[in-house]
Amino acid sequence: MSTYNVGVLGATGAVGQKFIRLLENHPWFNIAAVAASERSAGKPYREAVHWIESIPIPPNVKNMVVKSCDPKELADIDFVFSGLDAAVAADIERTFAEAGIPVITNARNYRREETVPLLVPEVNPDHIHMIKNQQYSKNGNGFIVTNPNCVCVPLTLSLKPLVDAFGVDSVILTSMQAVSGAGYPGVPSLDIMGNVMPYIGGEEEKIMWEPQKVLGKLNADKKVELAGIPIHASAYRVPVLEGHLLSIVVKLKTEGVSEKDAVEAFLNWKSPIADLSLPSSPEFPVKLMEEDRYPQPRLHAYSGNGMQVSVGRLRKAGIFDLAFTALGHNTIRGAAGGAVLNAELLVKEGYL
Amino acid sequence: MSTYNVGVLGATGAVGQKFIRLLENHPWFNIAAVAASERSAGKPYREAVHWIESIPIPPNVKNMVVKSCDPKELADIDFVFSGLDAAVAADIERTFAEAGIPVITNARNYRREETVPLLVPEVNPDHIHMIKNQQYSKNGNGFIVTNPNCVCVPLTLSLKPLVDAFGVDSVILTSMQAVSGAGYPGVPSLDIMGNVMPYIGGEEEKIMWEPQKVLGKLNADKKVELAGIPIHASAYRVPVLEGHLLSIVVKLKTEGVSEKDAVEAFLNWKSPIADLSLPSSPEFPVKLMEEDRYPQPRLHAYSGNGMQVSVGRLRKAGIFDLAFTALGHNTIRGAAGGAVLNAELLVKEGYL
Amino acid sequence: MSTYNVGVLGATGAVGQKFIRLLENHPWFNIAAVAASERSAGKPYREAVHWIESIPIPPNVKNMVVKSCDPKELADIDFVFSGLDAAVAADIERTFAEAGIPVITNARNYRREETVPLLVPEVNPDHIHMIKNQQYSKNGNGFIVTNPNCVCVPLTLSLKPLVDAFGVDSVILTSMQAVSGAGYPGVPSLDIMGNVMPYIGGEEEKIMWEPQKVLGKLNADKKVELAGIPIHASAYRVPVLEGHLLSIVVKLKTEGVSEKDAVEAFLNWKSPIADLSLPSSPEFPVKLMEEDRYPQPRLHAYSGNGMQVSVGRLRKAGIFDLAFTALGHNTIRGAAGGAVLNAELLVKEGYL
Amino acid sequence: MSTYNVGVLGATGAVGQKFIRLLENHPWFNIAAVAASERSAGKPYREAVHWIESIPIPPNVKNMVVKSCDPKELADIDFVFSGLDAAVAADIERTFAEAGIPVITNARNYRREETVPLLVPEVNPDHIHMIKNQQYSKNGNGFIVTNPNCVCVPLTLSLKPLVDAFGVDSVILTSMQAVSGAGYPGVPSLDIMGNVMPYIGGEEEKIMWEPQKVLGKLNADKKVELAGIPIHASAYRVPVLEGHLLSIVVKLKTEGVSEKDAVEAFLNWKSPIADLSLPSSPEFPVKLMEEDRYPQPRLHAYSGNGMQVSVGRLRKAGIFDLAFTALGHNTIRGAAGGAVLNAELLVKEGYL
Repeated sequence: MSTYNVGVLGATGAVGQKFIRLLENHPWFNIAAVAASERSAGKPYREAVHWIESIPIPPNVKNMVVKSCDPKELADIDFVFSGLDAAVAADIERTFAEAGIPVITNARNYRREETVPLLVPEVNPDHIHMIKNQQYSKNGNGFIVTNPNCVCVPLTLSLKPLVDAFGVDSVILTSMQAVSGAGYPGVPSLDIMGNVMPYIGGEEEKIMWEPQKVLGKLNADKKVELAGIPIHASAYRVPVLEGHLLSIVVKLKTEGVSEKDAVEAFLNWKSPIADLSLPSSPEFPVKLMEEDRYPQPRLHAYSGNGMQVSVGRLRKAGIFDLAFTALGHNTIRGAAGGAVLNAELLVKEGYL
Repeated sequence: MSTYNVGVLGATGAVGQKFIRLLENHPWFNIAAVAASERSAGKPYREAVHWIESIPIPPNVKNMVVKSCDPKELADIDFVFSGLDAAVAADIERTFAEAGIPVITNARNYRREETVPLLVPEVNPDHIHMIKNQQYSKNGNGFIVTNPNCVCVPLTLSLKPLVDAFGVDSVILTSMQAVSGAGYPGVPSLDIMGNVMPYIGGEEEKIMWEPQKVLGKLNADKKVELAGIPIHASAYRVPVLEGHLLSIVVKLKTEGVSEKDAVEAFLNWKSPIADLSLPSSPEFPVKLMEEDRYPQPRLHAYSGNGMQVSVGRLRKAGIFDLAFTALGHNTIRGAAGGAVLNAELLVKEGYL
Repeated sequence: MSTYNVGVLGATGAVGQKFIRLLENHPWFNIAAVAASERSAGKPYREAVHWIESIPIPPNVKNMVVKSCDPKELADIDFVFSGLDAAVAADIERTFAEAGIPVITNARNYRREETVPLLVPEVNPDHIHMIKNQQYSKNGNGFIVTNPNCVCVPLTLSLKPLVDAFGVDSVILTSMQAVSGAGYPGVPSLDIMGNVMPYIGGEEEKIMWEPQKVLGKLNADKKVELAGIPIHASAYRVPVLEGHLLSIVVKLKTEGVSEKDAVEAFLNWKSPIADLSLPSSPEFPVKLMEEDRYPQPRLHAYSGNGMQVSVGRLRKAGIFDLAFTALGHNTIRGAAGGAVLNAELLVKEGYL
Repeated sequence: MSTYNVGVLGATGAVGQKFIRLLENHPWFNIAAVAASERSAGKPYREAVHWIESIPIPPNVKNMVVKSCDPKELADIDFVFSGLDAAVAADIERTFAEAGIPVITNARNYRREETVPLLVPEVNPDHIHMIKNQQYSKNGNGFIVTNPNCVCVPLTLSLKPLVDAFGVDSVILTSMQAVSGAGYPGVPSLDIMGNVMPYIGGEEEKIMWEPQKVLGKLNADKKVELAGIPIHASAYRVPVLEGHLLSIVVKLKTEGVSEKDAVEAFLNWKSPIADLSLPSSPEFPVKLMEEDRYPQPRLHAYSGNGMQVSVGRLRKAGIFDLAFTALGHNTIRGAAGGAVLNAELLVKEGYL
C-alpha cells in the first residue's frame, strides 16, 4: 500500500484538529498540507490554531504554514479531508472537486446531492459507486463523498442489524448529545453546566432525513431510493464532553420478534467490510453490551478508538417492539473518524 | 384556618429535609415533631442530620430531639408527613394509620393499594375520597395518602390538558433525571459527572404503571379504574442537580389535532383546584413556554416555587401526533412539595 | 424616601440583566430606561436581549424600547447603573458624568482614577466623599462611583475584621472562580466541564491592586493612601456557576494571635453601615461558619440574597498566621448587587 | 528480564482496579492472583467487582477466583501490590511481609515507619535502601514499600528541580483535588456537581508531613532526616474526575532567582532514574509547559500515560519567590502507577 498525501481543509477548527490527531500515525495517509481561512493562511499552524486536543500538536503539523483553501495552493495532494464549516464548505469543496481533487468531507452541504454518497461504510458501502455519476471535474477524478450527521451514524449503525434481520417499520428516538458536537467555542458553560437544553437548531431535521438515504437502496442507475422509514427525533444537549447517547424505540416489519431474537440479530450481524482490514475499522462496529448500566458516554465513547457504536439495554418495548440505547463518539465515529474510514474504503475500492 | 401540628417521619433523609424546608413558613402546618431511625432518635436534630439544603436548619427544628418512628412517641400530632425509605415505610406508616394518625407519604409502598389515593391534586382531586374505603384505624381517622413517583407527577400533569381535550391513546417517553432523585449520598460523582447513566433501577416500571392509576376514573364504589394507556418509558440519569426533564411523544384519541389546537389545549386548561387557594398551589400548575430553548432544569425547576410543571417545544411529531418536553422539580413537585399540596387539599376537603 | 428613576447601561449583557433582576422590586429605584449598543437600540428589550436569568424578564422592562447609550436619549433619569463592557465603558460613562448624570458602574475603567471611589460600603464607606473632587460636570452633579473586581469584594470584606483587629501584613491567596464571572457566552463548556483552568487573563493584577485602594486611608484632601499590603494571587477558573471561593493565608501585624482571637475578631466585627438600613445590605456582610465543610459555592453563594460573604475553615496556618476560606457571589455581591448597595449608600449620604 | 507473578490486594476497590488496568500489558509483571475481603473471596472477579474503569476487565483477570487476603492463599507469588483500604491495610500488609512476601502498597499505614521507604523514584530513589533495616520476615525477604499521598507526589516532583537548584525554604499551596481521589462510591454527586468543597478530612496533614520524608536525606544508618521545610496546605475538592491541580507559592533558600533561572532549573533538571529504562517511567517526569492556560486536569492528567507531572504558569510571586501550578494524575502517578514504578525500581535495584 503506497502512502497518500492528504490535505486538511478547515484545519484549525474542532473537526480539523480531530483529523490531524487521527491521522498522526495513520499507515496510509500522510498530512502534506493544512488549509484554513484567510485569517489563518500564512501563519505556522501552531500560531493559527487554538489547539483543544489533549495531545500536543503533532510535530509534523506544528510548524506547517497554513494555506488558504484554494486548490492551486495545495499541490501534490492526492485528496483532501474537509472539516470546513457549512457556511463556506459548499463553494470551497466544489472548487476542489472541479480541480480534480477528491473531497472527503464532514460538512453537511452535499449530503442530499443525488450523486454524492452519504456513507457509513458498514451500512451502505455500495453507495460509494454513486460517485461514478459525479461530473465535477472533466477528467472525472474530482468527486465528493460525505459522512452523515453525528447522530445519524450511531443511529443507522445500531439499526442495521435489525433492518437486516427483521426490517424496521418506524423509529422514535431521543438523543442526548455531547457539547463537543457544537465545536469550539460552541456551547457556553452557562447554558449547559448542571443543565439540559431541549433544543439543538437544525438537528432533528438531519436525524430524521439522513438515515433515509443511508439506509436507502442503490438502484441500477446508482441512485438511492430513500428508505422511507418514519423517524421522529427529539434532540437534547447534555453536559457530556464526548459521545452522543440515543434512546431508541423501534417498530419492526416482522411480528413476534422476542428479546432473544433481537439479541441474536445483534450478535450475528456481520459488517460487510469486516474482511477488508481497513485501519480505522473497529473490531466491533456495533457492540451489544449486557449490563443494564452500559453504555455510558464517559466510559465507552472511546471504545474501539472511538469508532465503535455501543448498544445496550436491548429489551421489548411496551409500545412498538424494541427499545435500546446506542452510543457513538460524535467527533470521531460521527465526524472525522467516519470520514477517515470513508477514505480507507475509497482506497480499497480503487477510487483513490 | 387553625394551625395543624405535624410530624415528619424520616426527617433526617433528603426528602425529610425538604419537608422541613418547605414547612418552615407554612401558614397552616407547624412542625411539632421530627422522627427518624433508632440511630438518630434521642439526638438533637442538628446532630442527627447531615443537612444538605442551602438554607440553615430552621431554628424551630434545629434543636428538636429526634423521636423514633413510633406513634406513641408523637403525641399531639394532627398528622404526619412521611419521607421514609421504602425499605421501612410499609410497617411504620401502617402503624401510624392504625393508631389513627393520618399519613401523607412520599414513599412508594402503598401507591398501588386499592383504597389508597395516588394523588396529584390538579389531576385527580376526586381520588381523595378513596380514603373513605380505608379501614386502618377503628375510628376511621387514620388513613394513608400517597403521591406518585417524581416522573409520574410531571408526566400526568403535562398530559392532563391533552387527556381532557383530545384523549390520549399512548405515550412514549425518555426521562432525563436529576441526581437528587436518588437521595443522599445517592449517585456517586464518579458515575455521573460528564456522563449519562442509561438505567435507573425500578424506575421505568413506576413510570409506566402509576399514571394508569392517577389518570384512572373513580367509580361509584370509590375504586379506580386504571386508565389503560400504553406507556413506554426509558429512564436516564443526567448530571443535573434538580429537575426531571421528559421527552414525550403522544398519540391522541382524536384525529387531526393541529399544533395550534394543542397549544390552545394547554393555554385553556384550568386546574380543578385553581379556586381553592391552596398555599402550595402554583399560579401555573402547567405552564406552556414558547421559546425553543425552554424549559431547562437549571432555569425553571424552581418556577412556581418548584411546584410548576413547565412544558415546551410542543410540536407535531412525525410519528404519533405530538411531541413536547416537560420539566418538574423532582424533590419538590415530585416529592415533598406534592405531599404538602396533598395535605392542603385534604384540609380543604375536610379530611384533616 | 422618594423613588429614583434609574437607567441601566449595557442592559442586555450579563451584568445588565443582573441589575434588572435585582431592581425588579427595589423599594427606592425604578428602572425608567434601558440602554445598550447601537445593534440593540430601537428594539423592545425582550427582542434585544438573550435573557439568561432564571426568572422571566420583569414585565416593566420586557417591552421597553432599548435606547442607545447617549445621555440625550435618557431624559428624566436620576442616575445610571452601568454594566457596560470595559471596551466601551470609558467614553460612555464619562459622557454621562459630563452631562450631569451620576454613574454607578461595575466596569473597571475608572477604578484607579484618583477622584473615583472604589467602594465596598462595609469596608470603606468614607471613600464616598472622594466624589467631591470630581469635576466631570460643570454643576458638579455628574460623578462616577465604581465597585471593585468580583474577587476583591469578598477578599476585602473577609480581611476587614482582621485588618481592624490585628492589622494585616501580607496575603497569599488562590481564587477558584465561577464561570459566570466571564459573562455570556463567556467560558466555553469544552474548556471547563470536569476541568480547572489555571489562568484568567488580567485577573491577578486586579486582585493584587484593587484591595490596596479599598483598604487604603482617605486623607484630608480626600485622596486615598494605598494600603501597601503585599498580596500574591493565583486565579483559577472552576466548573461552578456562581460564587468565587478564595483560599487565603494571612500574615498579621500583631504577633501571637490565636485561632480563638481570630474567631472573635470575626464575630465581634460590626459593619460601619449596619445601622443605615440599606435595602440591599445583608444581615451578615461577613458570616463566619463553623462547619469544616462550609462555605460551598452551591449552597451559600445566595446567602443574604447573594450579598453575604461567607467565611469558613478559619485556622492557624503553618506559615504566616491564619488560613481561611471566603466565598462571595461574584455577579451579585461582586458586581451588580455591590453597585446597587453603593447607590443606596450614595442616597443615604445625600449624593443622590 | 524474567516475569514476576504478582498478587493484587484490595483488588475490587478503585485502586485495585487501577492496578489491574495498569498491569494488563506490563512487560515484567503478571497478575497471578487477586485478593479482597471475605465478602468477595471465592467469587469470580467479574462478579465480585463493581468495575468502574473504561476498558473491559482484562480477560486474564475476569474469571479469576478472588482469594482472601491471606498469604497462605497466594502461593507462587513473587510480591503483592496493595490497594487495601487503610482501615484494614496495617494488619494484612504486615502479615504478608512477615510471610516473606514483599508488599508494594498505596495504603498510608506504614508511610511514617522509620524503616519503610516513602518512595517517589525520581525524587528519593536512594531511600529504597531503608528496607535493609526492615525485619518483618526472618529470611529478610518480606518488606514494605509505600508511595506517598496523591498530592505529595506531584508536590515533591515539582519541587525537586527547585530543591536541587536553589533549595526550598517554605511552601504555601492550595490543592484542587479530583473526586476519584476519594475512591468509589466516594464523593456524592450532590456534594460536588457545580461546587467546590473546602475540606478533605485528614488530607492537609498528609500534604504537610509526607514531603518532609520524601525530600529528607538518607543518612549512613539508612534513616531519613526529615527535610524540615515549613509547608502550609489548604485542600479543596473540585468537580474534576482525574488529576489533582496544585497552586504553589515557594520561598527559595537562594536569593535573587529570576523567572528565567527558575525556567532553566526545570528544563535542566534530570531525573536520577532517567537511564534505568523503567517501563512505567514517563519521558518527562516533570514537564514545564509554556502556555498560560496549561496545565489542565482534563487535557493533561493522562500525559505520559498518567505518570507525568505537568508544571505551568511559572512566575515570580509578589510574596515569597515563585508561583506555579502543578498537575498529577491522582490515581495513576499519585497511587497505583506510582506503586508500579516503585516495584520496577525495586527490580532494577535487586530487591525483587
